Amino acid sequence: METMGSLGEFGFIDRISRHISGGDHVLVGPGDDCAVIQSGGKVLLVTCDASLENIHFDCAQASAEEIGWKAAAGAISDIAAMGGLPQHLVVTLGAPASTPVSDLDEMYNGIRGVASPFNTVVIGGDTIRSPHGLLLDITVLGEAPDGKYLLRKGAHSGDMLVVTGTPGRSAAGRLARGEGMDSPALEEAHYHPLPRVAEGQWLNQREEVHALVDVSDGVVQDAGHIACASNLGVAFTSASVAIDPVLVDFCIQRGESIQDYVFYGGEDYELAFAVAADRCETLLRDFREAFDIPVHILGEFSDTFTGTLVDGEPPQSTGWDHFKGEASTN
Amino acid sequence: METMGSLGEFGFIDRISRHISGGDHVLVGPGDDCAVIQSGGKVLLVTCDASLENIHFDCAQASAEEIGWKAAAGAISDIAAMGGLPQHLVVTLGAPASTPVSDLDEMYNGIRGVASPFNTVVIGGDTIRSPHGLLLDITVLGEAPDGKYLLRKGAHSGDMLVVTGTPGRSAAGRLARGEGMDSPALEEAHYHPLPRVAEGQWLNQREEVHALVDVSDGVVQDAGHIACASNLGVAFTSASVAIDPVLVDFCIQRGESIQDYVFYGGEDYELAFAVAADRCETLLRDFREAFDIPVHILGEFSDTFTGTLVDGEPPQSTGWDHFKGEASTN
Repeated sequence: METMGSLGEFGFIDRISRHISGGDHVLVGPGDDCAVIQSGGKVLLVTCDASLENIHFDCAQASAEEIGWKAAAGAISDIAAMGGLPQHLVVTLGAPASTPVSDLDEMYNGIRGVASPFNTVVIGGDTIRSPHGLLLDITVLGEAPDGKYLLRKGAHSGDMLVVTGTPGRSAAGRLARGEGMDSPALEEAHYHPLPRVAEGQWLNQREEVHALVDVSDGVVQDAGHIACASNLGVAFTSASVAIDPVLVDFCIQRGESIQDYVFYGGEDYELAFAVAADRCETLLRDFREAFDIPVHILGEFSDTFTGTLVDGEPPQSTGWDHFKGEASTN
Repeated sequence: METMGSLGEFGFIDRISRHISGGDHVLVGPGDDCAVIQSGGKVLLVTCDASLENIHFDCAQASAEEIGWKAAAGAISDIAAMGGLPQHLVVTLGAPASTPVSDLDEMYNGIRGVASPFNTVVIGGDTIRSPHGLLLDITVLGEAPDGKYLLRKGAHSGDMLVVTGTPGRSAAGRLARGEGMDSPALEEAHYHPLPRVAEGQWLNQREEVHALVDVSDGVVQDAGHIACASNLGVAFTSASVAIDPVLVDFCIQRGESIQDYVFYGGEDYELAFAVAADRCETLLRDFREAFDIPVHILGEFSDTFTGTLVDGEPPQSTGWDHFKGEASTN
C-alpha cells in the first residue's frame, strides 16, 4: 500500500498538485516557496511553515523564545526566497493544557523578535489544545515589489549557483548545543537565523539572477530544486567550499568534513540563486558592497545532465525529507 | 502557575493581543472571526482554523473525506461570518508516515468538495510528519465586497439576535453517528456542513444588520461574543426555539431537551447576527425569499446587563472551550 512515508514530502507535493484547480488570479500554485496571487493592483505572496515538537524542535534543547523565532524565521524566509516583502503573520499555536503561559509569552517574543525588523506583524491565528506537544504553523502574507518575483525555475545552462552567508553553521549549531560545545556563533545560526529579506529583494531587482530558493533542506538539495524546475543539472565541487573559520574549528574538533555541513546541513535560511556566468563577478562585487555577509559560487548549472553531482558523483545524501525521517541516502 | 489550560482559549487570545503591535494596513487584528487588512485597493480577510485527530475529529467516526470537508468548512465559515467572499486556501497537513495516500486524496476531495461551490481554490500549504495523528490547519484568504465587512462589535441595545438554519443538528449528528442511530440529515449537518457564504454576503449589504458571527461554539456562547464585543448582554428564552422536526425526533428518542442542542450544540457553522428590532420582520421575510433555509429570532440584546441569560438565568454551559476540554459549566 502506498503511504505518506513511501511517497515522501516531495512526492506528496506532486500528488496534491492534482487537486489544485488553478483558479482566477492564481499566478503560482503549490510547488515553489510561495503561492502567488494577483489581488487588485498588487501581487501577493503566501506561504506557511509548520513545526512540531520532537520532529522539528526539541524543548530540551531550545528555549520557547528560540522555538518561536525559528518557526517564524523559516516561514519569512520563504518570502525572501521569492524576493518579496513579508508583511503579515497568521500564527496557529497548539499546546498541551499544562504549558506555562510564560512559555507562550516567550514564544511570541521570539516570533516578534524576528518579524519586527522587517515591519512584519501578527494579525491573527488559531489556538488549539495539542496533548502530544507544541505545534506552530505560521502563515506569512507578503508582497512582490513592483509585482516582480523570482521562481525556482528559470536557471540557464552555464549559470553559476551562488549561496549567501555561511551555510552549514545551522546544522553544526544544533550539534554544538546538544553536545555542550561552546560555539555561540554556530548556535546563533541555528536558533536565531535571520531570513535574508533585504538580500532577496536586492537579487529580485537584478535581471542576471534567473532563479532563487532559500536553503532549508541543504544547499545541494535546494539547488537541486532550481535545477529540477529548470530542467537542468547542477554540479558542485568540494574545492569551491569557502572556508568559514568558525565551521572549520568545529569540524577539526570533531574530525568531520566541512563539505558535509555546507552541502547537506540544512535550516540555514540562506539564499541560493542562479546567475548568468558572465555577470556573476560583478554581481558578487555589488552584493558585497551592499551587504555585510559572505557570498560564494558553489556550483554550476548544466543541460548535459539532470539532478545533482558533487565532484562528479551523485551526492551522498539528499538532505532532510520530513516524511522519511533522518537525512536519507540516494 | 498559570498554564494554557487555566487561561482557556479566550483568555489566551486576550493575552496574545498584547503581542500584537498593530502595523500599517491592519484594520482588524486578533479577536474577531477574521483579521482584516488593506492591500492596495482591496480589503482582505484572513483566518485560519486548525484541527487535530482525537481532539477535533475521530478517524473511527469520520471518513477522510468528511475530515477534510469539515476542516475547510470551519475555516471558510469564518469568512462568511464577516460577510466576505472566500477565495484562496492554504492547507497545512500533518500525518503519520503510515497514512495511506488514498486517505490523503480523500481528505483533499473533501476540502475541494466544500470549497469549489464558492470558487475557492487551494493555492499552497505545507506537509509535515505528525506521529501522533492527523493534523489539518487551513488558512483562508478572502475579500470584503466593496471593502465592507461585519464585526462582532456593533450590536445595539434592543437588537434582535437571529440565527440561520437549524442549529443543534451538528451536535446531534455526531452523537447519532457514534451511537449508530439512523439520522442522515443530522449526520450531514455534522460531517458535511455548508458555510453560509452567500447568506453572509447578503447580510453584509443590509444596514440594519449590526454584528455577525458564525456558530462554532454554540448559539449562546457565540451570541455572547457579539454581546461582549458590543458591551451588551443577550437574553434567550427557551420558548423561542423554533421546532426542527428532525431534531425533535432525535431528542424524543433520547429523552433529551431540544433547547440544549440548539443553545449549546456548536459546530453548526450557521450565522448569528444582531438586527435592528424595528426592521427585523422585514429582514426575515426578505431573507426567506432569498434563501431556502430557516431563519429565526432566538434572543435580544440589552444594555441592562452583560453576559448571557437563558430564561433569566446564567446559562448551564458555555459550550466548548478547546483548552478546558469538555463543554464547561459557568
